[in-house]
Amino acid sequence: MNTPPLPPPTECDALYTADYVITQNDARDVIRRGGVAIAGSRILSVGHADLLEILYPHARRVELGAAVIMPGLVNAHTHVPMSLLRGFADDKVLRDWLEQDIFPQEAKLTPELVELGARFSLAEMIRSGTTAFYDMYMHEDAVFRAADALGLRAVLGESVTRFFPSLACASREAYADTVRRRAEEWKHHPRIRQAVVPHAPYTTTPELLRACRALADETSSLFGMHLAETARETQECLREHGLRPVPYCASLGLLQADSTFFHLVDVDAADMLLLAEAGSAGVHNPASNMKLASGVAPVPAMLEARVPLGLGTDGPASNNAQNMQREMYLASLLHKVHALSPTACPAQVALDLATRGGAAALHDPLIGSLEPGMRADFIALDLTAPNMQPVHNIISQVVYAATGAENRLTVVDGRELYRDGRFTTCDYPALLQEIQEALTWVRSA
Amino acid sequence: MNTPPLPPPTECDALYTADYVITQNDARDVIRRGGVAIAGSRILSVGHADLLEILYPHARRVELGAAVIMPGLVNAHTHVPMSLLRGFADDKVLRDWLEQDIFPQEAKLTPELVELGARFSLAEMIRSGTTAFYDMYMHEDAVFRAADALGLRAVLGESVTRFFPSLACASREAYADTVRRRAEEWKHHPRIRQAVVPHAPYTTTPELLRACRALADETSSLFGMHLAETARETQECLREHGLRPVPYCASLGLLQADSTFFHLVDVDAADMLLLAEAGSAGVHNPASNMKLASGVAPVPAMLEARVPLGLGTDGPASNNAQNMQREMYLASLLHKVHALSPTACPAQVALDLATRGGAAALHDPLIGSLEPGMRADFIALDLTAPNMQPVHNIISQVVYAATGAENRLTVVDGRELYRDGRFTTCDYPALLQEIQEALTWVRSA
Repeated sequence: MNTPPLPPPTECDALYTADYVITQNDARDVIRRGGVAIAGSRILSVGHADLLEILYPHARRVELGAAVIMPGLVNAHTHVPMSLLRGFADDKVLRDWLEQDIFPQEAKLTPELVELGARFSLAEMIRSGTTAFYDMYMHEDAVFRAADALGLRAVLGESVTRFFPSLACASREAYADTVRRRAEEWKHHPRIRQAVVPHAPYTTTPELLRACRALADETSSLFGMHLAETARETQECLREHGLRPVPYCASLGLLQADSTFFHLVDVDAADMLLLAEAGSAGVHNPASNMKLASGVAPVPAMLEARVPLGLGTDGPASNNAQNMQREMYLASLLHKVHALSPTACPAQVALDLATRGGAAALHDPLIGSLEPGMRADFIALDLTAPNMQPVHNIISQVVYAATGAENRLTVVDGRELYRDGRFTTCDYPALLQEIQEALTWVRSA
Repeated sequence: MNTPPLPPPTECDALYTADYVITQNDARDVIRRGGVAIAGSRILSVGHADLLEILYPHARRVELGAAVIMPGLVNAHTHVPMSLLRGFADDKVLRDWLEQDIFPQEAKLTPELVELGARFSLAEMIRSGTTAFYDMYMHEDAVFRAADALGLRAVLGESVTRFFPSLACASREAYADTVRRRAEEWKHHPRIRQAVVPHAPYTTTPELLRACRALADETSSLFGMHLAETARETQECLREHGLRPVPYCASLGLLQADSTFFHLVDVDAADMLLLAEAGSAGVHNPASNMKLASGVAPVPAMLEARVPLGLGTDGPASNNAQNMQREMYLASLLHKVHALSPTACPAQVALDLATRGGAAALHDPLIGSLEPGMRADFIALDLTAPNMQPVHNIISQVVYAATGAENRLTVVDGRELYRDGRFTTCDYPALLQEIQEALTWVRSA
């Protein structure tokens, strides 16, 4: 008997199998009748279902049938507490929207409301197949608590501007202390990482931005910021600093390999080179850019220039959902019509943005694909809905036909957060009740 | 006692109530805790739930709770049998896509396959809240049968070009005979109406188009055609006929009040005036225009010019779904970013396109809003999903936050076609099995 012994059964905790597995590995392999075997919080093996069944006969088995297992989607830019303001004001010019509608509401926010809004958005993300997100808002402690409790992977930062007191911090020093405290509090967390996130060039000063970057280094935090969102921002930056937004950030030392810049709508070829050379990541937000009429980010050109690029929804007040499935669809369609080329941003590229690109934007090399050793973050879409058949091309189906409601399973670090209508880390009916009651509060003067 | 007597209880067959009713009447009234009372195939009354309950105590009651009742969505341009080819080929240049992928497959189609594809798309439409559609394809008899069997409202036409034999008709005479036969067969049908639908200016001749228009008049059929879909079509039309596509059609007498033109991407101000003066309707297909990179239809300008405008998905091979919810979202976002104005195509306008505009495109004045005397065609979206709360503005929620999967109820002519996961006019599991088996056939040489 020269056959090697089977691995001990304890090695594999659970084996998930389905009609399709989209691996998103380097070769972009798709496996018919495939499976994902997990051990603890990591992926042990990905392959044909029947082979994995033989290898791991004692693993807990989850057979999903007519479904596709794929990497969890990564929402690389959002403001999750803003589910509180979903649909509160739409179809308005950005400045009116902010000044008349959003800012007065935000001024009334309490940490409790922020946490409720965050928890509700996290439920939406878990439901629709997002396993990791990059968030910036105010009272972000509440989002740390929500991500910890609901089990998602997250990069989280307290948004900071030059205007103090902010909602959560009395002064710049208080802000720095908050960052230092959180760094200490969350440094050993398996899923949550802090980012220092100044709001945008036009709401900060060069000194504040340099201080933020230094604070990120000091606390081993990531660094993120809204950047080059509109042509107007570029004009203002040129007028005030004599540089376009990206070179302005470069001049302040902000373009590092752990930096992530959100939106990048008004970027030119030189900007892209700067970003690519620094290894800084960008995040594309098609729904938000379209709905707020910010413009069309040059995504195909940025990819060509090798800017690592993720995909995000932006907050629920400007989207109005936290649905990465819809975001992939929008990204693909927007760039086709903008380039007047049906070959622009193909389905595979859109899926890459939402998975591998998300890993780059969150600076986590262990997410974004299903391969041995990677984190066990995956989802499974139902293929029995009438929009999901027949299956000629599973990538096309996932990007062009799915709505976001097909997701049946959300697993993060090997833990099931959702399966077939049931949330495991939140009491959804109670949460629904809470958010409806909060409505009264938000409406109050 | 001078109060008027209550109407006899038999007058109302069923009373549907929910937390919200979007009427889409002239005033665009939204009713909190509202209801729709129906008698036979028509709406008897729309109003506050508690009042309707008093008025119709003996009606069959359907209380939907946290849901919004609204007019059924109208898919004003599609090719339903093409669900067979959903995702079969994507991300290709139009001509390659047609010649290398779509045409060779279509050449293999049989009436049986066309009917299967149609039935599957109809299930998708019923599931996602579409109650009426305007379809053109080949072997359209099969679509008539599918619409009759599944219970949707439909305008249906056999697509015709100058190339004979077509898949279904040996000659132009055979085509005319087919139209006459169907006119006879379906003339008393309560939900189905025929249209004469030449494919497009560039696949027909002036004589054929005139003959088609005459045939529509002779058989009391509606008239529809793809028109001005791309700038290339305009160039070819100018070269061949010395006129842009819309004036070319006007010169042939095709612009009538019962005509509907699909796409209208490359139209100028004079084109719009011609369409508006004739009272011809247009149909906007944002997903298809974006995915095939046809361009951006000037929807706000057409609405300004008072061209009656509906919204359509186009076929599942170029969308890749039959989801009018997504189409509303796309329409609204596309025109905002194209106009660089967040006030372009607001949520209410997008909803109007999919309801009242659909009524105009299908030339049926009794659909598109919920009012006494109108046809009882309505749907109800679940508001308990995490993307649908909190509700600050129900119109915004329906257009910007819904995915298409929230629909719980589809009623056409007072008949329930779908409620809470159950189809009443098709055996969905059997249909799913059939479409999966058909895949083998489609793939065969």
